[in-house]
Amino acid sequence: MPDGSANQKPQYDPTFTDNVINATGPAASPRMQKVMASLIRHVHDFARENDLTIDEWMQGVQMINWAGQMSNERRNEGQLLCDVIGLESLVDEITNKLLVGADYETTKTAVLGPFFRNDTPPTMNDTSIIKTMPSDGEVTYMHGIVRDAATSQPIEGVKVDIWQCSTNGLYEQQDPEQAEFNLRGNFTTDKNGYYGLYCLRPVPYPVPDDGPAGKLLELLDRHPYRPAHIHFIASNDQYTPLTTQIFDKKSKYLTNDSVFAVKDELLVDFKPMENGSKASLELAYDIRLARKL
Amino acid sequence: MPDGSANQKPQYDPTFTDNVINATGPAASPRMQKVMASLIRHVHDFARENDLTIDEWMQGVQMINWAGQMSNERRNEGQLLCDVIGLESLVDEITNKLLVGADYETTKTAVLGPFFRNDTPPTMNDTSIIKTMPSDGEVTYMHGIVRDAATSQPIEGVKVDIWQCSTNGLYEQQDPEQAEFNLRGNFTTDKNGYYGLYCLRPVPYPVPDDGPAGKLLELLDRHPYRPAHIHFIASNDQYTPLTTQIFDKKSKYLTNDSVFAVKDELLVDFKPMENGSKASLELAYDIRLARKL
Repeated sequence: MPDGSANQKPQYDPTFTDNVINATGPAASPRMQKVMASLIRHVHDFARENDLTIDEWMQGVQMINWAGQMSNERRNEGQLLCDVIGLESLVDEITNKLLVGADYETTKTAVLGPFFRNDTPPTMNDTSIIKTMPSDGEVTYMHGIVRDAATSQPIEGVKVDIWQCSTNGLYEQQDPEQAEFNLRGNFTTDKNGYYGLYCLRPVPYPVPDDGPAGKLLELLDRHPYRPAHIHFIASNDQYTPLTTQIFDKKSKYLTNDSVFAVKDELLVDFKPMENGSKASLELAYDIRLARKL
Repeated sequence: MPDGSANQKPQYDPTFTDNVINATGPAASPRMQKVMASLIRHVHDFARENDLTIDEWMQGVQMINWAGQMSNERRNEGQLLCDVIGLESLVDEITNKLLVGADYETTKTAVLGPFFRNDTPPTMNDTSIIKTMPSDGEVTYMHGIVRDAATSQPIEGVKVDIWQCSTNGLYEQQDPEQAEFNLRGNFTTDKNGYYGLYCLRPVPYPVPDDGPAGKLLELLDRHPYRPAHIHFIASNDQYTPLTTQIFDKKSKYLTNDSVFAVKDELLVDFKPMENGSKASLELAYDIRLARKL
């Protein structure tokens, strides 16, 4: 059957795309059949709509190969390529709508990004995650209550795994001058749902731009900067894990984040700390989780 | 402006895709702006149509990174991933329609594939390209006339760059047992438009299936085989270069080539050679080229 797409151009073989899709065998999983048929149709329509040439396609192939060649345990350039065209942010939205599926307001999600480590050791509440203090760092007391989004009751025993970059824009695994696990903490809420820690006021930084993602940003006449933010994942056996980022509402780049992660609900206020001996700023941030479906 | 796509799902932010597209700066080239806007829209529509989850997307990212990591000077796995979803064959069709743009019949094109070498030394007509003879090889006298597609006049001085794999399914750069440039020749037509050489009858072979392209074929319940074929590029300063493959009409896999390159017009007949001392088979194949626009 010919492809019924509105974008089919009559000069190109109208049976080609269906032939490719129909080559899929009966033992492919139903999900694989559905997703790949859709992917093949979109990729082919994209090529036809733009009269994509062999040379242009080969430039794309080389970019993909380059992404793989730059990727390693500390860096995921394939992910970053997706991020700069908004794909990670979009699948994050999709996944959370599927997982939560309720009307009450949970904390909004944002992309994980490539710098999370899943081996940060447990950290005591009210301690500091600053192991290597930069000269221009502003210490912030960050704290809040984790609540059930439906009942507003505090939740005990929620892990709050937090990470941020230093004031030079680098995460500890990117920067040999920083101690291991600098600016990472893995807290657990107490019986009042409380978590608290000392961290830095975050700063904007560029995503790594020495690879294909940087090249793509340059070709699109875009900057590589992200607004100042703190990452965290809040999780507990009984609640849907929440991955997000909170953004300093005074930061640059809030309206043009290079990876499209900002949401209004995630903007936060760093306020001067009253009577603070350990911190000059305070950030109060409560988290609302949805029970697992 | 909200995306007008029929596939937009109301539960997802209707402004997101336009925001990503509109981030492109004014200094991006018009072609880049057009192609990337189309790519972003298709990729986002693909994700929404399939409610693509973070885990599924990350499997795709890992496949892309794996492709790059396996690619080197002798292997292009990013290209092969595209080939098994028909994309190289499609951009080949598109490019040739753009380049030729005439109604008269040129020889049909087919994909270059990953095994071409651009450094094959010039070869004399009527010599053999078999440097390493396999025990089961069937020597074929291949010859023909290269003609102008509009006038049918023979063309002198056309380079005919030919390559094929050996009977074990491997090209010389994949196989340390084969001499360098085995089964490669770079001929030039004489004043009668004639080219001629001795080669092997080709055999079907699987595309390399130890990487992500092989994994994708497995997930799609497809085999990796290509029907028996001989590659060539015919080129001359005054004519549009022609890249194609000719297929043994008695081969297996003609209807289910793993890279979708077969066209009816490219099927050829290997006939017993009459009075042949140097070859047991004969393949007569004329080539028709279009003048450059």
